[in-house]
Amino acid sequence: MSPTFSFRVLHTDGAARRGEMTTAHGVVQTPAFMPVGTRGAVKGVTPRDLRESGAEIILGNTYHLWLRPGDGLIAQLGGLHRFMGWDGPILTDSGGFQAFSLGAKRVITEAGIRFRSHLDGSEHLLTPEGATDIQVQLGPDIAMVLDECLAQPATAAAVRESTERSARWARRCRDRFLQLAETESVAASGDSRFGRGTDEARVPPLDRARGGPEPVEGPSPASRPRVTNPGQAQFGIIQGGTAPELRTLSVERTIAIGFEAYAIGGLSVGEPADTMYSIVGHTAPQLPADRPRYLMGVGTPLDILEAVSRGIDLFDCVMPTRNARNGQLFTSEGRLTIKNARYAADEGPLDAACGCYTCRTHSRAYLRHLFVSGEIGAAVLNTLHNLRFYLDTMARVRQAIVFGTLETLRQSLQAIFSRPLSDS
Amino acid sequence: MSPTFSFRVLHTDGAARRGEMTTAHGVVQTPAFMPVGTRGAVKGVTPRDLRESGAEIILGNTYHLWLRPGDGLIAQLGGLHRFMGWDGPILTDSGGFQAFSLGAKRVITEAGIRFRSHLDGSEHLLTPEGATDIQVQLGPDIAMVLDECLAQPATAAAVRESTERSARWARRCRDRFLQLAETESVAASGDSRFGRGTDEARVPPLDRARGGPEPVEGPSPASRPRVTNPGQAQFGIIQGGTAPELRTLSVERTIAIGFEAYAIGGLSVGEPADTMYSIVGHTAPQLPADRPRYLMGVGTPLDILEAVSRGIDLFDCVMPTRNARNGQLFTSEGRLTIKNARYAADEGPLDAACGCYTCRTHSRAYLRHLFVSGEIGAAVLNTLHNLRFYLDTMARVRQAIVFGTLETLRQSLQAIFSRPLSDS
Repeated sequence: MSPTFSFRVLHTDGAARRGEMTTAHGVVQTPAFMPVGTRGAVKGVTPRDLRESGAEIILGNTYHLWLRPGDGLIAQLGGLHRFMGWDGPILTDSGGFQAFSLGAKRVITEAGIRFRSHLDGSEHLLTPEGATDIQVQLGPDIAMVLDECLAQPATAAAVRESTERSARWARRCRDRFLQLAETESVAASGDSRFGRGTDEARVPPLDRARGGPEPVEGPSPASRPRVTNPGQAQFGIIQGGTAPELRTLSVERTIAIGFEAYAIGGLSVGEPADTMYSIVGHTAPQLPADRPRYLMGVGTPLDILEAVSRGIDLFDCVMPTRNARNGQLFTSEGRLTIKNARYAADEGPLDAACGCYTCRTHSRAYLRHLFVSGEIGAAVLNTLHNLRFYLDTMARVRQAIVFGTLETLRQSLQAIFSRPLSDS
Repeated sequence: MSPTFSFRVLHTDGAARRGEMTTAHGVVQTPAFMPVGTRGAVKGVTPRDLRESGAEIILGNTYHLWLRPGDGLIAQLGGLHRFMGWDGPILTDSGGFQAFSLGAKRVITEAGIRFRSHLDGSEHLLTPEGATDIQVQLGPDIAMVLDECLAQPATAAAVRESTERSARWARRCRDRFLQLAETESVAASGDSRFGRGTDEARVPPLDRARGGPEPVEGPSPASRPRVTNPGQAQFGIIQGGTAPELRTLSVERTIAIGFEAYAIGGLSVGEPADTMYSIVGHTAPQLPADRPRYLMGVGTPLDILEAVSRGIDLFDCVMPTRNARNGQLFTSEGRLTIKNARYAADEGPLDAACGCYTCRTHSRAYLRHLFVSGEIGAAVLNTLHNLRFYLDTMARVRQAIVFGTLETLRQSLQAIFSRPLSDS
């Protein structure tokens, strides 16, 4: 199903890799950061502004899009790329993390995750097969397997049990994915459920095989998903908490299944930064060198540098966008809080070293005024800047790997971001 | 004070005029529509997107900017153009309308309008001189006189009294404006109160001559405003409610004072559309033919056409931007409500006849999804479209005047917009 997915390493600097990942919707220079477009939109930023900020790949959230507007509708409309007006690469998560963190009354069984929607309380069951089907309908270039997000703290036994279950779920996700790949021509040829029209009643309801009061274990023939992106790749996820031996076990089990590439999950969930770096340093080298490695949900600029230097290639995090909306801005001199009174009459740009539209056009005084006034423009302009900062940082990281100066860059970022807020 | 302000009529079609208004920050093709940037930002739209939508001049609200962040601060930062990153023409209102509609415990005396701020309850007095000073500090290309916005319904005697008072206030505004023009070189040379720095404590407090518990009638030498735009023009405002004879009286009084140009105020405040058109038709021809005529706060596309055909050149209204945020969209086929379920699976553009970014990039289904999900992007994309619709309509109006086909265009818009919502 993924003849178009490939990856090659162009340069290395220690364990760090400067690479190029090819997807069905284009090439991504790695290490890469993926802005998060939770509900089919990176909040406050249009696709063209995303491009301008330097984004090459973005992330969508399966849980949100499944519940609203529905993967069936998005498939009917040609898939997520067309739906959101972004023609570059997209990665979607499996929906598991949000089912855990946003869903109510969640129960995990071998079948999957049963929960109630945070939108309307409706009951759903997210199975490995269902998570695969939903992503096949959404049509990202990279889909993720469903894994179990274990609540912390957990006993060693619970982590082991969860790791084993995630490996079994990964097997089911891959089986379903390969099954759909084989029958793709049938599935892609159209499904009578998906009529074209403007009547909402004709939009297929949420697939009962994936939820509803009478969940069915496997997909029925009637629920065969529409394949909107034949070039989709599927990534496995390494779990195992903070125990190196369980991480190794998870690597073995997951690689044995065989995916286009692998992610490290279950980190940046409250453990100390050193622990995270240590687990990344333990796990990354065990992953195939000829495939990209993705550290899920990470992180701060410094976290990213530390992970890159341990061999990670892909990152995503809500931090630049969410912090922007909260008035927390990243600059070349550190973080700053734009509502701070010291910026009330500051006619300088947010970051004199930044070339984004916000920094080229507006003063800190103006940005503070918009934020304090609750203007929409505050979210828009701050997001443009924070994304640019992150994506510029990734460009610097890639450059540093080529020139063998990653450690110098790491020290420079550490000096900036290990300080308190620049305005505190 | 306004050597740079001029206006010339290029073509006419009946009473309608196709003109060109030159201001200190550039030329405006008329008839023109001015998007409203209440608090120093057209909500959800960056200056570059405003430009792209076809805006040539925008409006700022004196009341809002005076109370926050303060005209003193904006002057210190170089004026409103620089503050908001818009280098084209700007017009500001006098602040009177919002002091009436948003201020609490408002009391009108001959001195001015006393009210409490909607932000913090602080008491302020907005005088004609104060409104002039604030606008001199903000530095728009066109400033408006302070007039009395009479609550409706009002007795004939009350309307007459109010019209007389507005004329006296106009006189005071003009006197103050001319006084500042004469002393401009002194005022512009700098004022020790306005130190450059980043310490908020150095931002001058709100001018006590214009508010505070101990209002002073005239400005003291210490409160001389900083002139941030030496090319500023000042428009008088015609009041008189719906009584033609009072409108004529107001025209005579206001023209006798002498302004760069004139506006018609006090309409679109709840009177029937026919009454408004009739008053416009009565008043506009009495205004100097060699000056632009501005109909304040109007209105729907059809209102604008009707007013243009009666000789109006300038318009402003929150309708395109506010409606956009509420999901009410203007299209070449009429208005539509994007949250309507009929658009859930509609893969067509909002308006097939529109070339805006939103219509070029996104489907109605996507726009509905963003709106229903409460995404910031809904406001951003809808605003881009509605503004483009308004500004494209103005371009069609100008073209129609040149070709003598304004009546045909009016009938066409009437057919579209006198219908119920296209989706109701």
